[in-house]
Amino acid sequence: MQKDGWYTEEWAGQGSAISLRVKEKVHDEQSVYQRIEIFETETFGTLMTLDGLVMVTDRDNFVYHEMMSHPALFTHHHPRKVLIIGGGDCGTLREVLKHDEVEHVDQVELDERVTRVSERFFPELCAANDDPRAHLHFQDGIQWVKDAKAGSYDVIIVDSTDPVGPAAGLFGQAFYADCYRALNRDGIVVGQSESPLFHSDLIKSMHEALRQANFLDVATLHFPQCTYPSGWWSATLARKDATLATFREEACCERPFATRYYNDGIHRAAFASPEFLFKALL
Amino acid sequence: MQKDGWYTEEWAGQGSAISLRVKEKVHDEQSVYQRIEIFETETFGTLMTLDGLVMVTDRDNFVYHEMMSHPALFTHHHPRKVLIIGGGDCGTLREVLKHDEVEHVDQVELDERVTRVSERFFPELCAANDDPRAHLHFQDGIQWVKDAKAGSYDVIIVDSTDPVGPAAGLFGQAFYADCYRALNRDGIVVGQSESPLFHSDLIKSMHEALRQANFLDVATLHFPQCTYPSGWWSATLARKDATLATFREEACCERPFATRYYNDGIHRAAFASPEFLFKALL
Repeated sequence: MQKDGWYTEEWAGQGSAISLRVKEKVHDEQSVYQRIEIFETETFGTLMTLDGLVMVTDRDNFVYHEMMSHPALFTHHHPRKVLIIGGGDCGTLREVLKHDEVEHVDQVELDERVTRVSERFFPELCAANDDPRAHLHFQDGIQWVKDAKAGSYDVIIVDSTDPVGPAAGLFGQAFYADCYRALNRDGIVVGQSESPLFHSDLIKSMHEALRQANFLDVATLHFPQCTYPSGWWSATLARKDATLATFREEACCERPFATRYYNDGIHRAAFASPEFLFKALL
Repeated sequence: MQKDGWYTEEWAGQGSAISLRVKEKVHDEQSVYQRIEIFETETFGTLMTLDGLVMVTDRDNFVYHEMMSHPALFTHHHPRKVLIIGGGDCGTLREVLKHDEVEHVDQVELDERVTRVSERFFPELCAANDDPRAHLHFQDGIQWVKDAKAGSYDVIIVDSTDPVGPAAGLFGQAFYADCYRALNRDGIVVGQSESPLFHSDLIKSMHEALRQANFLDVATLHFPQCTYPSGWWSATLARKDATLATFREEACCERPFATRYYNDGIHRAAFASPEFLFKALL
């Protein structure tokens, strides 16, 4: 909602809202799937909303994109083939392609318009779109995983919107079973898993669904994300046949690319579970 | 600001704001120092604001109060005497008094009305106010520390408002030098240090001031705090003559009291520094 120089997102069902002061709306379109709006804000740079919900701002997207990619990629022993479901703003893709050992990335985003609009308004996030390792597909991610060859990916990243509408199926056991099948040995799936403060029931149900889909280890990592509901966000990882408690620390410490949030200390720290969530997941 | 069923705090200088849906304002007074308002919200329970800024809500205060107290108290080898500066809502006091080895707590809050209003509207936070170990004083904390006997405290907790107005002096080198003098051997001071996303300059200046005041080790811990600016908050600790990298892990794991956020994993994790802050503090 835009009013009196502010964009406001009311956090659904939480009796709370965040507002960003906007200079102007610079784009507004209704795609086949959703309303895509772009605002220039006063202090968060460019803002993209989908159906009125904050997706990405220039100022704080680095935390989310780094935490959706690097923990999984530095946990896998040698990630060559990566699948991104969603991720239309391409910020996760950019982080994934910073890893030299990645040879091929399929990104399967339902709505091509999100990517085209991002290319125009978030050129920095889309800087790696022309990388020859990047393959952009605009179709249904659930069907893509169902059709994928068994063992064809090392890491699957589910960079989706909230678990309502078309994205709801990305949080269920049937989808996770397809991910399990599509993953290679040592394969890892990671999905954004909403706010630990607001949506701990969802995190709990994801853990259950991932275990039912036969993943050996499941763990949730935490990070701050100012413009997402509650300012506190999470991603949940599952690994086929090994623990998530170890990662390639040396490679992480010696990474040849820059990060702004992620490092080896953050990697270890992010998996610490607040007492209330630890008990909820027992 | 209260309008159309919402309470809104604009985050000063950050072009952003949080809003909580309110059912009604149940208290409003101008004390000698500030305007104290109490609201009943729809989903965050009771809310107290001081001069229009969120101080505490029923729903999310547990993170802040646990992180202001337990990391410092489980780092000190045997905290007997504790000083709390500010802390008028008494939530930190309650956490401190959960530690059996604490024998004496002085809480020095400038504005008695904050505590009296909290006793009425946040009885849970004030549940330990009658503990014989708790000593409430309503006067200037800066002067209190200046007058304190050398080596008279094991832990000093600066549970203050933002570094403007009367609280500004609680973030400066002169105050930290007085804290250093007032602390016993192995003494630790911890102060709330605002948002890492919005106020990294303040964190940096606190580190410098604490080192100039002769503290041997200085470290910042991080935690989510939904209703504070950016949803991401911090506390900065300094220790007189030992590292902050170790703590009484066994005592922490075997603590005989309940926590909702803090545990040993969170203790270790909270001190991890995001890459951008690590570089800013080099």
